[in-house]
Amino acid sequence: MLVVITGVPGIGKSTTVRKAFEKMGDESKEFEVVNYGNVMFNTAEEEGLVKHRDEMRSLDTQTQHNIQKEAAIKIRQKAQNNKIILDTHATILTPNGYIPGMPKWVLEELSPDVIVIIEANAQDIENWRTKDLKGDFRRRETGNLKGTEQHQNVNRCVSLAYSVFTGTPIKIIEKNEGQLDEAAEILAGILTK
Amino acid sequence: MLVVITGVPGIGKSTTVRKAFEKMGDESKEFEVVNYGNVMFNTAEEEGLVKHRDEMRSLDTQTQHNIQKEAAIKIRQKAQNNKIILDTHATILTPNGYIPGMPKWVLEELSPDVIVIIEANAQDIENWRTKDLKGDFRRRETGNLKGTEQHQNVNRCVSLAYSVFTGTPIKIIEKNEGQLDEAAEILAGILTK
Amino acid sequence: MLVVITGVPGIGKSTTVRKAFEKMGDESKEFEVVNYGNVMFNTAEEEGLVKHRDEMRSLDTQTQHNIQKEAAIKIRQKAQNNKIILDTHATILTPNGYIPGMPKWVLEELSPDVIVIIEANAQDIENWRTKDLKGDFRRRETGNLKGTEQHQNVNRCVSLAYSVFTGTPIKIIEKNEGQLDEAAEILAGILTK
Repeated sequence: MLVVITGVPGIGKSTTVRKAFEKMGDESKEFEVVNYGNVMFNTAEEEGLVKHRDEMRSLDTQTQHNIQKEAAIKIRQKAQNNKIILDTHATILTPNGYIPGMPKWVLEELSPDVIVIIEANAQDIENWRTKDLKGDFRRRETGNLKGTEQHQNVNRCVSLAYSVFTGTPIKIIEKNEGQLDEAAEILAGILTK
Repeated sequence: MLVVITGVPGIGKSTTVRKAFEKMGDESKEFEVVNYGNVMFNTAEEEGLVKHRDEMRSLDTQTQHNIQKEAAIKIRQKAQNNKIILDTHATILTPNGYIPGMPKWVLEELSPDVIVIIEANAQDIENWRTKDLKGDFRRRETGNLKGTEQHQNVNRCVSLAYSVFTGTPIKIIEKNEGQLDEAAEILAGILTK
Repeated sequence: MLVVITGVPGIGKSTTVRKAFEKMGDESKEFEVVNYGNVMFNTAEEEGLVKHRDEMRSLDTQTQHNIQKEAAIKIRQKAQNNKIILDTHATILTPNGYIPGMPKWVLEELSPDVIVIIEANAQDIENWRTKDLKGDFRRRETGNLKGTEQHQNVNRCVSLAYSVFTGTPIKIIEKNEGQLDEAAEILAGILTK
């Protein structure tokens, strides 16, 4: 079983998963949370292509695509006998524009059972990001409500394109301020199906 | 000729087709309206997989995909020598999320000439659904304007992804309260081209 | 290097490219601007299929797709040793609906490095189109704000589907009234990367 979790930075994917696990009790122990970026980095490191995470983005496009695909194969193998939650991005915002987190060659290897998109009002996301300025997200841009709205719109569109390749259901979970519990409940429902 | 008609539940696809046929006079007799869900059910029934319609959703994912593809092949064959209007869904809302009505393997068999999306204001759809509560739609959820808007947005996005696979034109027809005649006129124009 | 530039009619693609070139100085001389429609017409003309541009749309669908693909191959070849800016449409609005400018068979040949979408407020586009009524755009429809919004929404969605096939980044550049300089700056940044 392979459930992909996506959402713009700061939306609270990890928090929602943790809360869903609480609700699931012992059943949550069957799940492993895998971070796509980590698997990519480990793959590139093993192949001697990079030593530090920061070097990933300096790889040429074709090498990045190959690493992406190899990571997808590893994750699919893991998911044969295990329940995997894959934490990744629908799109990544780069200086050159939005790039898809799951292009064709990744999607066809992964063939996920569900793709979850966690969405929230741009203003709520802004507030969470601002509060978190001292923490992990300190370098994250804030003050860009329109940009956050655009990123969410872009993520939704690209995810629907993903679904055409593999038939994977796209589950949109709304998690505005105060709706963590509700969102976690819906996620738990999907995971325990 | 194969024209696909889509739109959220309650939008009035059948009514619009009927009205377009009135406008077309004798030319409408060349058309056969085919319901994708019916073809899928008949296919599954013939293969002894199900006896009742309700059993369709309990088939495993791979079997559903196979049935979907076989149905697409049948419909394409029909469309070789006939004018077919295919009544189907751009996406179907399931507990696991939106699933595409025409994933890659369906689309590549169908290769439709046009995909029509009938859209309306969410409030108008809500009113039509509410009035119809005693009829076919009695089990349909009402009171979910935001959900209807989301479903229409999702359908538009997924349809544009469809078009990239086959080059099929995506025709968006607006049919708000009082615009049935206008919408039917546009549809008739496409059918008689 | 192949950078695709898209945007609804009247958005000012050429103006933005010209302004970006000014900013780039001599570096702009390395770039050639290629118009997809022109390459398609030249291809069809060479093959004796058409004599005038107007005849292009009367070619049957399969022939159009073939020409589209041959044009893509030519452009890709040009881009092997040159820096190409490809001026084309994300979707083209036809009486049968929106058709994708870069369906699968085009996209897989082109494999662009970046797809740029220039967007603006529908009202600004309307104003530019109206002013330009005596010029090139004299036959262009005006007075259709909602249609312009829809076309931009459709272009964004289809472009995100494009990205899934090739992993190409989608760069959205906002160019409202008064933002030409800013938009050109961003474009120049992408071209000189």
